Parts: sequence; structure tokens; C-alpha cells
Amino acid sequence: MSETEPDTLAPEVREDELDEDDLLKPEFVRAVLDAVEEERPEEARALVEPLHPADVADLFEIVPADRRRDLAKAIHDLVDADVFAELNDYVREELIDALDAREVADIASELDTDDAVAILEDMDVEDQREVLRAMEPDDRAAIEEALSYPEESAGRLMQRDLVAVPEHWTVGDVLDYLRGHDELTTDFWEIFVVDPAHKPVGTCALSWILRTPRRIPVGDVMAREQTLIPVDMDQEEVALRFQKYALISAAVVDGNGRLVGMITVDDVVHIIQEEAGEDTLLLSGAGDGDINEPIALTVRTRLTWLVVNLGTAMLASSVVGLFQGEIAKFALLAVLMPIVSGMGGNAGTQTLAVVVRAIATNQLTDTNTWRMVRREITIAMANGASLGVLIGLGTLLVFHNPGLSVVICLAMIINNLIAGLGGVLVPITLDRLRVDPAVSSAVFVTTLTDTGGFLSFLGLATLWGLGG
Amino acid sequence: MSETEPDTLAPEVREDELDEDDLLKPEFVRAVLDAVEEERPEEARALVEPLHPADVADLFEIVPADRRRDLAKAIHDLVDADVFAELNDYVREELIDALDAREVADIASELDTDDAVAILEDMDVEDQREVLRAMEPDDRAAIEEALSYPEESAGRLMQRDLVAVPEHWTVGDVLDYLRGHDELTTDFWEIFVVDPAHKPVGTCALSWILRTPRRIPVGDVMAREQTLIPVDMDQEEVALRFQKYALISAAVVDGNGRLVGMITVDDVVHIIQEEAGEDTLLLSGAGDGDINEPIALTVRTRLTWLVVNLGTAMLASSVVGLFQGEIAKFALLAVLMPIVSGMGGNAGTQTLAVVVRAIATNQLTDTNTWRMVRREITIAMANGASLGVLIGLGTLLVFHNPGLSVVICLAMIINNLIAGLGGVLVPITLDRLRVDPAVSSAVFVTTLTDTGGFLSFLGLATLWGLGG
Repeated sequence: MSETEPDTLAPEVREDELDEDDLLKPEFVRAVLDAVEEERPEEARALVEPLHPADVADLFEIVPADRRRDLAKAIHDLVDADVFAELNDYVREELIDALDAREVADIASELDTDDAVAILEDMDVEDQREVLRAMEPDDRAAIEEALSYPEESAGRLMQRDLVAVPEHWTVGDVLDYLRGHDELTTDFWEIFVVDPAHKPVGTCALSWILRTPRRIPVGDVMAREQTLIPVDMDQEEVALRFQKYALISAAVVDGNGRLVGMITVDDVVHIIQEEAGEDTLLLSGAGDGDINEPIALTVRTRLTWLVVNLGTAMLASSVVGLFQGEIAKFALLAVLMPIVSGMGGNAGTQTLAVVVRAIATNQLTDTNTWRMVRREITIAMANGASLGVLIGLGTLLVFHNPGLSVVICLAMIINNLIAGLGGVLVPITLDRLRVDPAVSSAVFVTTLTDTGGFLSFLGLATLWGLGG
Repeated sequence: MSETEPDTLAPEVREDELDEDDLLKPEFVRAVLDAVEEERPEEARALVEPLHPADVADLFEIVPADRRRDLAKAIHDLVDADVFAELNDYVREELIDALDAREVADIASELDTDDAVAILEDMDVEDQREVLRAMEPDDRAAIEEALSYPEESAGRLMQRDLVAVPEHWTVGDVLDYLRGHDELTTDFWEIFVVDPAHKPVGTCALSWILRTPRRIPVGDVMAREQTLIPVDMDQEEVALRFQKYALISAAVVDGNGRLVGMITVDDVVHIIQEEAGEDTLLLSGAGDGDINEPIALTVRTRLTWLVVNLGTAMLASSVVGLFQGEIAKFALLAVLMPIVSGMGGNAGTQTLAVVVRAIATNQLTDTNTWRMVRREITIAMANGASLGVLIGLGTLLVFHNPGLSVVICLAMIINNLIAGLGGVLVPITLDRLRVDPAVSSAVFVTTLTDTGGFLSFLGLATLWGLGG
């Protein structure tokens, strides 16, 4: 990668463009779009120029999809590599499609390896090859190597620009080396100390170097204990490790333990956010929930999930079908049964959300699994009993039917227990089977609470002779 | 705060204690607990000693609650301030309760202001006062000032230890200052340049200082554009700003624009994770979903939410009550009605998850709200039509009743539309009313899809004369 400018920091006050939540104001967006439409590109450029690259990227994301290319044409000199690095995947793909290989290669050359890889990994193999051909051999080699690692692995995330020095160097040697090599990266917060085989032996925060006299060897100020990231580690694990050990940067090593790259915390922050936020979307079956996704893809993702749920809903309703005779004789059963199944669904969703989060954040281990199960059963019993008594009393008050009250109370307790057990056991089992529990737990748990609710309520009602 | 040791980094390989997911092995935990129980504290200490403070904290979190105090007693010299900083809030409170004010004060004095505040803010006012009295005046003043800011604000999150220098200093002046003042913090990645009124005028990454000759003034290498954090900004906004502008650290300023503290990215990473992950828990009404929360508190939190849902479930079932006559005559209606309401619930949950995430990540702005609403309506129409046709054909095949098939098909389309509209309009409206959409959206949307499902299906069936 060629040297990039140190990122300019965001402006202190941009009251004309940004509101108090740091969002672009609608008036500002409209003014830019008007200038583009009325073919006054200078005006558009003058408006956009003061923005931070992250805000320029936001601008592209919030304007309607059919205006993005015109906007890009009008302010093309402001749409630099930094803006591309910040763009949403779908929006970036859209803009990249409008560029030729030479232009994409220029943009990729200006980026850190990890950002360049993010752009190239989504392209067709053919386009990708063309862009790579148009790049300098060095940049090309770095990207090709990164692309050789699995998707979402540390190898894709790391940058190869880093500062590594031998253990016998003094602080003075390091300072002279840094001052004498302008081509080195400026985006680093720690330097790595390596042995002759290029294996990391320690890490040294820049603040320690700044505070240490020139004559001291770096071996004396470095921390020998360090967190190394294997190049094939999944990015979610990388993020958890950064978080757990409060890392700023970490050395990435290959299978032989040799230093091959560095991951910095700013590359990890958006992964932490994505991985933590995606559970909400996965549990609901909304895919990755990207609002810039092409609408046909969104429909397909969500519909697939809904059709699976339709199957389970029909299964649950076939349970109701078994009791048609009782319902025909006593239609009140049909009125009350959705309460039992629905409340089970709510309780199951609560347990599921807690367990899925605990699994995702590495809080649930083999040691405390059984404790978690007992805990959820206790909670289910307490909530089931409370809700059962409440709905039982309510039913008695409204319908003056003691049998019906006892039946709905018992069914509520049973279905809460089913919900608690299902909510904790389904995701734990899926996790043991190496299936992401966020993706498929909800459908199993809902099936359990729907059928469990109908079966317990209508079954008990039949046994009690309520439909007779 | 007194000077803390630079954090030791996590050990490279700890195969005896950690599994491949970086979790403590059950064998290891059992060995430690056995040593504690059999009163061999030296053995327990020898086992725990090689662990990183974050892993010692994990150990306390995964052992049963009734073993934590004995463990703490056995390895008390290993339970230092760094371990306390990493502990889960509830577990920390439990351990702190067992200590006297003097011991808590010693631990708090060794921590950065933000970590000390995290410990003290959860204590009773009385205990807090006692601990503060036992602290050095300097530390005490820093913590009291931090506690004067609102909870979850930048003021609580920031540390007051930072390096600020005047603009006219040269790089050489900065190096000499840092080498000459051992009491300065070592946890910093950027230095702040201030004017005589102590207002920040620029930021300088340590890597720039390292690479610049001694004679150059810092004013020439600093970045003048910078992201300042107001001291009363909510921590969620702080986290979003760090993420958006890829910050490593940022200056915190008071109402007069004067530099009062610094926030570093490692303080923000766990907030990003918590805030992004909490939506799943909030949407389900599982509170903060902390598995170390006292069980009575968990029951209360979840039960409150379930009781609210019970109310809405009864509301929905009262809609069914309006059609008891039709159901008694044609019980098949009761069999099929949960499919329509349930599928609406699923579709509504999908839309809700996407919209809540978009709001939480600042992707939904005034400019693109209307586009989002149209997008969700389009998706709801497409999915509703597909599911409607599917269930209509299925019903025709199984029950050979064309009227019933048309009714369920139409009801499905209507309820999907209700789900899509509710899923997007409810959270947007709540957000405009400054209510957190993750907390209360689900109950409104479920109510809409339940009553909408029952009303559309049973209502259309009645109009069609199916129950006649």
C-alpha cells in the first residue's frame, strides 16, 4: 500500500451540516441534491468539501439510490479512498460498478490492505482480476495474499504495514529508524519486537518509547506477555479478544508463529457493533437487516424465514384441529387459547434473548451451563405461577367458570415451563452442534410454545370435560 | 489517581487454563474450587496466578455465587484493582460488600477515574461517602467530580489523566516533559494541544511525535480538526462518534470548551458491545439480561413485561370473543386464525428489528425516513401476497372450501401490511417522542398484529358468511 495521509479528524462544530445527533441535516442534503440536479457542481462541491469522509459516505447512503451516480459525478474529486472505506457495502458496490478497473485500482492502492480487501472481495472474479492487474505489483501481492485467507478471518482484517524491530535495538535506534523512513505507516499505536525468525517476542506502546531515554534497549521496556492473533481466527473471536483484553492493536501470526500483520482496534470496533447487533436481526429472521440492501434480496431473505414459520404455524394449528369438537361446543376455548400460546411465546423470547447474548459474549461456558438451565427453570416457575394465578382469577371474575379458571392457570404454568426449557436448551444444543443459535433458535422455540400452549390448554379443558 | 502499571498483555498460550474459544476450562475451574474447598490456598493461588486479570474476573463470574467469597479469601492478593475493573457489576458488588471502606478505597485509588467511578456509583450513598473519606484528597476530588456528572455520560467515562501541551512547544519539549514526569499516565495514544485558556486546539498522535525532528513545534504536526466530546454527552452517542470517526482517543470539554478529560477507545469498546447487544434483550423485555443479576430482580423485570403483554393478549382475545357465534358454528375458523395472527407477528418482528437497528446506529435520518416507510410497505406487500397465496392454496387443498381460502388469503395480506406499517411507524414515532424504541415497540406491534389478524380473518369470514 502507498502511504496514506493521517486521517483528518472530524470537525469540532459543523452546525450547518450536522444536527445534534451528528446526522446530516435534511436541508443540507436537499441543498446538495438541488445543486447536483441543477448542474451546479461547484456549489455541490463547496457544500460537501468541509465534511469528514465518514459524513460524505453517510451522504451517499441517505440520498435516494437513483441520485447516487449523479452525485458521485458532480463531486468526484471529493469521493476519495477514505470515503470508499466508510461506505456501506451495497452502496459501495453500486458506485464501484460505475467505475472502470483503472479507477478502482487507484482507489484501492490508496487504502490500507484491509479496506482495499473489503472493496475487492465483493467483486466478480473477473472484475477483481482486472483491478488487480491494474495495480502496482506490491499492492497487488498484499491484496492477493489477504484474499487467500478465509472470509471474515483475521487475515482479511489485518494490515501488513506495521513497525517491527529486533530486541537488541535501543529506544534511540527506534526513533532514528522511524524518523528516517517516511514510507512507514503512520497508523500505529504499538511497535512489535521480533526475534531473528520474525516471531513476536514483545509489544511496546508508543507512550513507553516516548518516556524512555534513548540508550535503553526496547527489550527492557516491552511487555513480554502479549495476545497474538492466529491469521485464520474468525473475526468475531478477534473482536471478543480485543474487548476482553482491552487491546489497541495486536500482532497477527501465521501457522509457524511468524509476524505477518497487525490488527488495530478501529478495524475491530465496527465488527463488535455488527456482531453484537446482528443477533436482533438474526433472531427475527431479517437477514443482515441492511437498509441499503436491494429490495428483492430483502424480500427473499425475509420470505424464506416466514415460509418456514408458516410451516410451524400450520403444525401448531393442526393441534387445535384435534379439538374442533370441543371448540364447537364451547367457543370460549378458542377465545382464550391464544393467550396461553402467546404468553409462552413472549416468555420463550425473553429466555432466548438472554441465552443467545450470553453465548455470543462468551459468558456461557461448560462450567456454568447447568446453573443457567436451573436459573431459567426457576424464573419460568415463578413467572408461570404468577401469570397463571393472574389469568385464572381474571377468568373466574369474567366468566364465573371455576373449571375454566383452573385449566387456564395450569396451562399457563406448563407453557411457561416449556418456554423456559426451550428458550435455554434449544440455543445451547444448537451451539454445541456448531450451528449459530441466533439464526434458528426462534423457530424451534415458537413451535414449542405454540403447540405447547394449544395442547396444554385444550387438552386439559377436554380432560376436565369443559367441552362436554 | 496514582500511577498504575502498564497493563500486562494476555499470555500467548494458556492451554492448561483456556480452551480454543479463550474460555476457562471446566477442569481448571474445578481444580481451583477444589483447592479452595480443601483449604489449600497456596495451590489455588498457584493455579490462578498466571491468569490475565480479565480471566481472573471471568473465573469469579462463572463459579457459583456461594463460592465466590471463599475464592476471594483464598486468592485475595491476586484480586487486585485490575480484576475489579473487569468484573461484572453484580459480581463486583457482591465482593465489594465483603470488604471494608479502607480496602475499597485502596482498590479505587489504584484505578483510573472511570473504573473507580464504576465501582463507587453503584454503592449506597453512605458506603460511598465512607470510601471517599478513606481516599487521598486528590483521588477523592477526581471521583467526586466524575460522580457529579449524569450517569452514562461522558463525564463518568472519561479519565482526567492526560497529556496536554501548549501550541508553541516543540517536539523536543514534549519528549523532555514526558521523560521528566514519571507521575504522568502511561495509558495514552494521543496528546492534546491547548491554548492558554486550556481549550483544545489540536490533537497529535504519538506516532507523529515519534517521527518528527525535535525542533519542530507541535502546532505544525498536530491535526487541527478534531472531534470534541461534550462532558454531558450520553455514552451511546460517544460510542457512535468513536465508531464513525475511527477515534483512538478524544478530548472531553466542559460547557466553556475547556479540556477536562480524555476518553480512550478501550473504555468505549464495551459500551459499543453493550448498546448494540441490548436491543435484542430490550425488544424481548428481558431487561439488561445479565446472567449474574440476582434472580428476584430478573423475575421482577421479566414479569412486569409479561403482565403488560398479558393485558394486550386479553385485548386481542376479546376480539375473538366478538365472533364466538361464528366459531361455534364453524370451528375451523379457530384452527386457522392463529396462523394469520402469528405470521403477522413474525413479519412485524422482522421489520421492527431492522428499524430499531437503523435508529440505534444513526442510519435512519429525517432525509430517508419516508423512503424507509415505502420500502417496508413494498416488502410487506410482496411477502403478504406470497404468503397469502400459499396459505390460500394450502387451505383449498386440505379443506376444499374456496370461500375459506379467499378469506385467509386476504386476511394474510391485510395483516402483513399491518405488520409492516406497525413495524416501521411505531419505532419511528416513539423515537420522535424521545422514547427508546427498543423498549416498548414490541408490545404495540404485537397488539396490532394479534388484533389485526383476528379481526381481519374472523371479520372477513363473517362477511363471507362462512360461519352462517
